[in-house]
Order: sequence, then structure tokens, then C-alpha cells
Amino acid sequence: MKQPVRIAVTGAAGNISYSLLFKIASGELLGKDQPIILQLLEVEDSMERLKGVAMELEDCAFNLLHEISLHSNPNTAFAGAHYAFLIGAKPRGKGMERADLLMANAKIFSEQGKALNNYANPDIKALVVGNPANTNCLILSRNAPDINPNQFSAMTRLDHNRTTGLLANKLAINPEDIDGLCVWGNHSATMYPDIHNAIAYDSHDIIDLVDYAWYQEELIAKIQQRGAEIIQQRGLSSAASAAQAAIDQMRDWILGSDDRLVSMGVMSDGSYGIAEGIYYSFPVVCRFGRYEIIQDISINNFGTDMMKATENELLEEKQLIEHLLPKETEDNYKKVFVQDNDGSNLENFYYRANKI
Amino acid sequence: MKQPVRIAVTGAAGNISYSLLFKIASGELLGKDQPIILQLLEVEDSMERLKGVAMELEDCAFNLLHEISLHSNPNTAFAGAHYAFLIGAKPRGKGMERADLLMANAKIFSEQGKALNNYANPDIKALVVGNPANTNCLILSRNAPDINPNQFSAMTRLDHNRTTGLLANKLAINPEDIDGLCVWGNHSATMYPDIHNAIAYDSHDIIDLVDYAWYQEELIAKIQQRGAEIIQQRGLSSAASAAQAAIDQMRDWILGSDDRLVSMGVMSDGSYGIAEGIYYSFPVVCRFGRYEIIQDISINNFGTDMMKATENELLEEKQLIEHLLPKETEDNYKKVFVQDNDGSNLENFYYRANKI
Repeated sequence: MKQPVRIAVTGAAGNISYSLLFKIASGELLGKDQPIILQLLEVEDSMERLKGVAMELEDCAFNLLHEISLHSNPNTAFAGAHYAFLIGAKPRGKGMERADLLMANAKIFSEQGKALNNYANPDIKALVVGNPANTNCLILSRNAPDINPNQFSAMTRLDHNRTTGLLANKLAINPEDIDGLCVWGNHSATMYPDIHNAIAYDSHDIIDLVDYAWYQEELIAKIQQRGAEIIQQRGLSSAASAAQAAIDQMRDWILGSDDRLVSMGVMSDGSYGIAEGIYYSFPVVCRFGRYEIIQDISINNFGTDMMKATENELLEEKQLIEHLLPKETEDNYKKVFVQDNDGSNLENFYYRANKI
Repeated sequence: MKQPVRIAVTGAAGNISYSLLFKIASGELLGKDQPIILQLLEVEDSMERLKGVAMELEDCAFNLLHEISLHSNPNTAFAGAHYAFLIGAKPRGKGMERADLLMANAKIFSEQGKALNNYANPDIKALVVGNPANTNCLILSRNAPDINPNQFSAMTRLDHNRTTGLLANKLAINPEDIDGLCVWGNHSATMYPDIHNAIAYDSHDIIDLVDYAWYQEELIAKIQQRGAEIIQQRGLSSAASAAQAAIDQMRDWILGSDDRLVSMGVMSDGSYGIAEGIYYSFPVVCRFGRYEIIQDISINNFGTDMMKATENELLEEKQLIEHLLPKETEDNYKKVFVQDNDGSNLENFYYRANKI
């Protein structure tokens, strides 16, 4: 039998985790033959509820679930973790300014970054789901100087899946028959869902199959506002679909995306002229436990403007919290480039990764 | 590619369904190669929320999910359904007597039984999760005279899984290394979790590994009261673990339990001296899409008393709603015995089943 892997989840008593944990424990993340240890983190006030969730996990008699531990201290929650889902974040309160929200989360993710740096398995992969996810991911990474920035990722798979789902529905085809679409930039209302390079059935350009005005004027806005629409409809924010997207993004990252293009918020290496040093959603393919940013996507003027707008938002967010971060060192800067993106030079790729 | 199967779910905007639907759509029920059509039923007041759930299902871009339809009429919700999860039920309101609760649910399940009878696929398998599950299942079955009573089942797998999980934790062994335990009777505080025949690692009698007083005085009460304990801890009733148990019970029923003993609330055929004509949880093995009640379990005096108490509760529940039910005909009675329980005579087994 395989050795169990340690999976840390923060915000573990919240709604997204309530969907996520049972999927992880049943084998949806790593397969039906991979035992799991769950290390769950919550704030003190939620420990009673968290205990209830742990009891329900016990009540499922999952064969793969070897151990559950509950933590209010990130240092112990992340100890030895191979994978981490960072779901807990401070939600925007009434009358809260964007800067206040960023600051409140900077505090949480700085502490968790340090904990990951000092206590997690050095091979950790950490997925940030808690919003503002991209900038939270940056804070996490900057506070974990010993961990390669390409071991962190912000979740934009929900936006990617939403675009795929809505497009499949529009075209009345199966989601698996669509490939090549992506979501660029920030997981926020500025994100840019891009279907210009999407194909159906490996051969048909989707952009020719839909009305361009519908795409530009309706679909993009619908994806950007989908979260708000769900809240209005359900009275609660997306939880089950967010959990599924978290599973999808992490599973593809770990086990590979089968040569399919997926979207991930990753450390920008300057590809497509996007500023380095921010976590930006790019089109990627995952293999060998790593992502590679796809380089040959053609962008039209509309796309360039959209990509710039969401980049600017991320740079503004970064500026608002920059003073709280450890200095960006030459060393940090180098690590950003460890990721080999042309996919052609795997020997070099591993060599450089191993130097870290 | 396989033809899609139609799965109807009632109470589809509720908390259990919110965990269940995403598991079904991701292939946890029938495997990663079986396309699904979801037919979701809710009361009028919850249709807006249900639409939100459907949107989230769309947002997951599940390859297996070919169609979702939303219904407030059970006749259309169950049309052509191959499998049904009956989750929606009237919860006990403040100051509500048990008889009132049974009556309120009798109305719901009578209507749904007729709808299943008239519109579902004749091979339907229907699992009742909504409480009081056993008696709701009886009402359903009696209102569906053209459907064999062994095509209905009440969910006691949650109790079975809870017993397995707690016992595995106590013994510090894996749940899959435990077999042979079962839960008898009603899914209520009178249920009887029986570990007298449970074995660990195919060879060790578990009853010899635990303190008998602990089993009798602590474990049984803990399982009986587990639902209340979860509510106290989480502030909400069990949803994710109930959904997982529903998946487990239905999957084993359809695809087989791999010769493992599981508990299902099924129409009593008089086995172990339990009165015929009530849905009672028995130890069963599932194969060929059918359950068989295991006949050779030895019962001690303690067990006999426990089994009788929970049987009596079910007979009382039946008496309270009997006047609302269609008459029990000779034909109903015969159908109860279609199920061949010795497992030795499969030709006869099928022959008799095909006569229905």
C-alpha cells in the first residue's frame, strides 16, 4: 500500500471545505489507492464546528482516510504537509474598503506563508482559494522564501470551468469536447475569459461557432459576475463548485492535465508581457507534477487590453500590501525563473529545480 | 459511450442534496464512464435556490452530466427515472407530535409513490433518505403497487458506516479491515448496531477485542444518538456524511457489495422472525443488482430484545399511518416474497423476479 500523504486544509469548518474534505477523503483528488492524512486548520471560534466535521468524516468510514488532526496553529497544521488548500480568508465586511480587505488577509497569509516555509514538506504544493486569491498567494509566497514560487498557485479553475460549462451548454456539446480556452489575470471581476483559441472536437474553432457580440458582451460579463449571480440565486456563495474546481486544479497539477489546456494563477515570469512578480492566471499544461505556461496563444487587440486591465488591478493590489512584505531579494527574483516554460528542456528543468 | 441513466433526486435544494448531487455528477455513484441525467424535484418555494444549485453543477463542467432538469411536479421529476434518491421530507417542527410528523410525510410519500408507479422506469431502484425513512419507504412502496417492494430501500447505511468508523477508530484499524457488523431495524434511536458477528482482518472476532460493557453501554448509545451529537457540534444536521452513505448504499445495491455485509432498510420477508410488511434494516449482501438478506447471523438474548424493540417501533409507526394507505392486497403480500434469500437458487431467483 502507498504511504499516506499529508493534506492541510485551512478554513476547514467553512462551506467550501465541507464539500472539499469529503471529496479528498473519498479519493477524488489522488485516486482510490492513495491513503490520506488530513490536517485541518481553523480559527479558535470555529473549533467546535470543525470537530463536528471531523466526526462526520469519521462517520463515513473512508478506507483512505488514515488520520485527521485539528489545529488552530498553522505551524502544526502545515507540519510535513505535501499539499495544502488555503481556503480560509477574511471575507469583505460591510463598508470595508478594498485596502482594508487586503490588509486583513495579508496578516493571515503572512503568518501561513512563514508556517509553510518552516514546517511543510519542502515539496509542498499550495493552492490558494481564499479571496483575494491571487494577491493572497503572492503574500504567501513572499513569506516563504525557501519554497519555490512555482509551488504556489491561486485558484482560477472555477472561472475556467464556468467558461467551459457555459460554452458547452450554449453549443450543446460535452465539456470534454472543448479545449484551448483560458482565463487570464485576476480571480475578480476583471478576469478575462478567452475563447479565441478554443476548439471543439479537436478541429472546430469555437469563435466561429458563436456570435462574437454574444461572447464579448454577454459571456465575458456572465463569467466575471457568476459568483454574484450564484449568491443571488442560492442565498449563499458558491461552495460545491468551488470545491470541485479546487480538486480539479490540484489534481491536474499533481497528476497532469492529459495535455489539455487549463487555467492556473501562477507566478508571472514575464510571459505575454505580463509584469513579473504577481500571481496571474495563465493558460498552462501540467505534467510531471509541474505546470508550463503555454507560449503560443495568439492575442488580438481586444485581448491585449483585457489582459492589461486585469494585470493593472493585480499590480495595484500588490502596491497596497507591498510595504507589509519581506523585501523581494535577488534570490526571490531568480526563483521566479526556475520554472522552465518551453517544455523542451526537461533535463535542465529538473536540474534547475533541484538546485532550490 | 454508455447511454445516460436518469437519476431523480427529491429535496434537491437541501443540504444533503448539495453534497450528493456533485458526487453523482462526478461519477462517484456509477463510475467515470456512466453519463448521467439529473431530474431534480423541489417544492415551489425552493425553486430559485434549486436553480442556483443547477448553475453550480453547470459551473463544474462535469463531462458525465448530460442534462439537468428542475421540477416541482413529481410526475415529471420521476419520468423514466432508473434511480431515485428521496431526500426531501417534512422535518419535525416545534411541538409536533410523532403522529403529526408521520402524517405530514405520508402525504408527500403517497404522492411520490404514485408518481414512481406511473412514470418511473419499471426497473427503478428508489432509496429513501428523508426521515422517518423506514416508514416513508413503506408509504412509498404501498402507493406503487406495480413496483416490486424490493425495489425500495430505506437508508440505514449512515448508521452502518458510523458503527464501522467508530469501531475502526477504537481498534485503530482501517475500516476496510472490518466486516460482518450490521444495524438492525429502524433508522431512529431504537436502531440496534450489532457487532457480535463482526470480524477484523477476516479472522479476529471483534467482540473479543473490545470491552463488552463499552459496546453495550457506550457504543450503541453513541450510534443511536450520533445525529443529535453532530447537530450539537456543527449547529447543522449531518449532510455530507448522509450524502456519502446514500452514495454507498445505492452504489453497492446497483454494482454489488463485493461480498461484504452491508445494512439496508428493506421489506421484511419474515427473516429472523421480524414481522412482514415493514421496512426493517437487515444485514444484506448485494449482487446482480439485488440484495439478499443474510440468514445465518447468530443472535443472543440481548440482540433478540433489541431487535424486537425497534421492530415494535416500526409496527407502531405503521399503525399510525395504515389508514392512509391503499389496502394491502394478496398481490402485495406475494411480491414481498419474490426476493430469494438463500442465495443458492439464482435460476429460480430470476425466474420469480421476472414474473413481476
